[in-house]
Amino acid sequence: MAATEELYREYKNKMQRIADIKYAHAVLQWDQETYLPPKGAFRRGQQLSTLSEMSHQLFSEDALGELLQELISRGDLTENQKRNTELTLEDYTKNKKYSSALVRALSDQTNKAFHSWIEARKQNSFSVFEKDLAGMVSLKIEEASVLGFEQHPYNALLNEFEKGSTVALLDGVFSGLLPPLKELLFKILAAPQVDDSFLRQHFPKQQQWNWGMHLLKQLNFDFEAGRQDVSEHPFSTSFNANDVRLTTRIDETDFSNMTWSCIHEAGHGLYEQGLPEDEYGLPLGEACSYSIHESQSRLWENNVGRGKAFWQYHFPALQQYLPGQFATVDSNQFYKGINKVQPSLIRTEADEITYHFHVYIRYELEKQLLEGAIKTADIPVFWKEQYKNLMDITVPDDYQGCLQDVHWSHGSFGYFPTYSLGSLYAAQFYDAARVQIPSLTQELAQGHTLSLLQWLRTQIHSKGKMYTSEELCKRITGKPLDAGFFVSYLLQKYQPIYNL
Amino acid sequence: MAATEELYREYKNKMQRIADIKYAHAVLQWDQETYLPPKGAFRRGQQLSTLSEMSHQLFSEDALGELLQELISRGDLTENQKRNTELTLEDYTKNKKYSSALVRALSDQTNKAFHSWIEARKQNSFSVFEKDLAGMVSLKIEEASVLGFEQHPYNALLNEFEKGSTVALLDGVFSGLLPPLKELLFKILAAPQVDDSFLRQHFPKQQQWNWGMHLLKQLNFDFEAGRQDVSEHPFSTSFNANDVRLTTRIDETDFSNMTWSCIHEAGHGLYEQGLPEDEYGLPLGEACSYSIHESQSRLWENNVGRGKAFWQYHFPALQQYLPGQFATVDSNQFYKGINKVQPSLIRTEADEITYHFHVYIRYELEKQLLEGAIKTADIPVFWKEQYKNLMDITVPDDYQGCLQDVHWSHGSFGYFPTYSLGSLYAAQFYDAARVQIPSLTQELAQGHTLSLLQWLRTQIHSKGKMYTSEELCKRITGKPLDAGFFVSYLLQKYQPIYNL
Repeated sequence: MAATEELYREYKNKMQRIADIKYAHAVLQWDQETYLPPKGAFRRGQQLSTLSEMSHQLFSEDALGELLQELISRGDLTENQKRNTELTLEDYTKNKKYSSALVRALSDQTNKAFHSWIEARKQNSFSVFEKDLAGMVSLKIEEASVLGFEQHPYNALLNEFEKGSTVALLDGVFSGLLPPLKELLFKILAAPQVDDSFLRQHFPKQQQWNWGMHLLKQLNFDFEAGRQDVSEHPFSTSFNANDVRLTTRIDETDFSNMTWSCIHEAGHGLYEQGLPEDEYGLPLGEACSYSIHESQSRLWENNVGRGKAFWQYHFPALQQYLPGQFATVDSNQFYKGINKVQPSLIRTEADEITYHFHVYIRYELEKQLLEGAIKTADIPVFWKEQYKNLMDITVPDDYQGCLQDVHWSHGSFGYFPTYSLGSLYAAQFYDAARVQIPSLTQELAQGHTLSLLQWLRTQIHSKGKMYTSEELCKRITGKPLDAGFFVSYLLQKYQPIYNL
Repeated sequence: MAATEELYREYKNKMQRIADIKYAHAVLQWDQETYLPPKGAFRRGQQLSTLSEMSHQLFSEDALGELLQELISRGDLTENQKRNTELTLEDYTKNKKYSSALVRALSDQTNKAFHSWIEARKQNSFSVFEKDLAGMVSLKIEEASVLGFEQHPYNALLNEFEKGSTVALLDGVFSGLLPPLKELLFKILAAPQVDDSFLRQHFPKQQQWNWGMHLLKQLNFDFEAGRQDVSEHPFSTSFNANDVRLTTRIDETDFSNMTWSCIHEAGHGLYEQGLPEDEYGLPLGEACSYSIHESQSRLWENNVGRGKAFWQYHFPALQQYLPGQFATVDSNQFYKGINKVQPSLIRTEADEITYHFHVYIRYELEKQLLEGAIKTADIPVFWKEQYKNLMDITVPDDYQGCLQDVHWSHGSFGYFPTYSLGSLYAAQFYDAARVQIPSLTQELAQGHTLSLLQWLRTQIHSKGKMYTSEELCKRITGKPLDAGFFVSYLLQKYQPIYNL
């Protein structure tokens, strides 16, 4: 009988081969969003489908399943080896449920839907996207039934992005979160408003780019192990811990757009750069979950990057990078301006409070689409009603309404809730960080973010998938996820800004 | 029994899946040369090896061989279908000779050798590269014996780059080519020299880039189906006819470097953009051969792009793009300067005559390495001797000597001779083009290159692999390859420049 070490090496080799193909897929996707010439889109879609199918096939081989069973039955696995093999078996079992036909159907539909979404945005008409989206919803319903679920088909999809997440749990989270947010929003809107007009001047492209690169360096993003490029929608991706790609977009009339998307994507990127490189291809080499990933981007973007201490240090540098635009603004006005709260149309540009209304609307919509309570054709009407009800704003068209997010064209149903969970985890982690690094605020005010990064590396990044989100949260903060941390963070921040 | 059409569709699907993986590999290589952060190199190497192995495995499946045999036995294939299946079977049979172990060994050795070549260049020391190169040579000898050969192991490798090419044939080509080149070179060196000092001023990066992009557009390179980026060494690659990538490098002290590398790579790129897109993944969707590929880059670079007519039109635009540097030069001085003949150290910067001495030295070296007549450790001495003997120049160091080409680190033994063949084909094709498009010179002098491109599209690009190099040459020019066309092209060009 083969030694455990030998079998484990065989398992690792198999997983790394699969990872090689998955990451090749990710390189092709990154290229698609950054540099692909327009006519290349058709064959690129095929190439992506083929790679998806290949990695799916390799990950479905019976020999892998048998190897995993054998390894798990051995008593001499280390703790890490045990965790890796158990998580892999879980994924393997799930993956086996997908037929090659379904994998290719999902991949093909993604390509179709992505291109019709692009076209629909060009024409500012949801109806151009509707048919392909309906096809996607049907496929996701099929996927949910293939995966299996209790109570609600949406649960199967939610579980893909956040293990254990369900409609019942999320309904609970949102019903605990939305009322205090509404109350705070109401008070803020009734108070004298802050001025943020200086954020909407002309900011030349190259100067913004330089400023963004400066910020990434300040945040200790490692440019030997990553890079930044431009794409229509900012995102981060990685092909291993030593090759992490961020993208940004530059709007010359809006300073906020690029700056906080840089910090946000850097948060994702720093997490990826901190994952254990020697666990490449294995669960312990991967991020804990989508919501923990988002907690990292949110923590850097908001808790740090919209904080007073951070700008105390960085505002003078900003004045150098964009001389003129901020000459008559002081650091305190700037701090208030970048934290202005205002109901708005676009999720990615929303403030820290109203952001969660955007997420909730998408969550409700997905839930109802999956249970068949509404049809894809009804989305624009639903969208307008919800924005009116929740934030009292009028959605003028589809481009600024239900066509704004790429997620559905990618088939990512169940993803949005992780954005809210991410903010909640971020607030709870940041609270713990401030206790455990007493000098944190002072350090940020001196431009030092390395203690915080090292704390996150130790507590979160280096752990990979060792723990679930919930376990990680308890280990770090001593408590399960509690929206109260986020609410009190908001109160402490916004009461002084709006003199409430 | 299945209908031929159905079987053919099955064959096409299989081939397109393999192509998807091969082109994914090419995307990862392109990224490696353009944008990969340094620390990402290690895992990228693994990813490339895995993809090579995957496509090799798929192309070795017995079912494909049986399908090909069955298809070829059918009497109702179209001419195109017949050619595709026959060429595929030929490749299939060859591919079957490679074990997965050899494929991975070659891929791994390529990664190792590429990185030690980079390091050797940094340290300007061949010895840093020598061990990995020796490993590569051993593998290539193994490969030659796996492939099988008559008379000389080098023949097996030459055949990979140019079907039917052998040591005997190439010895013949070079012995017909080198004596007249030497004679012409001797006369030129004895004549009064032309001035090209204006090519070595300061040419700012951004202005050169803009100029290069302008030239690519003028040459009708389709930027909807391709792009240009920067890499350390210019190259072209393509992921299908609608996604062709060129790269260039910019030397601020040398005008020639970027301009003619742009035109050269554009020649390759125009060929790729002209291949039949509906034959994606099949031989008829691929370029005829390496030497025909090179004929396209050489034809645009030299026959067109170093020609008098071309610069008659483009020189005024150049003076606009780089105002100052060419203010005191006229179009005729410029034409003479860019065609200055001078023995030099670096192949890619050589003039049209001495270029072939560079190629010949590499050819001889590879031949002797493969037969074991010299060892890798002897390369620097061999190199210096040959450069002294053939061109009477002293090679000062390895960086400017035997470390200058990337090819060996990639395992591309047998590639170099196609460069000379490319020039010969280019001259012969260009001669035919001038006969068949009587207004060609006049059109070039008016900045129009579309007739020539369309002629090349019809005669060469659209044919894919329908004919061998030799057949194509006969169809287009009525004659087999004849170095005489190249020699008389050189004489007609250089006699007036040097008043011989």
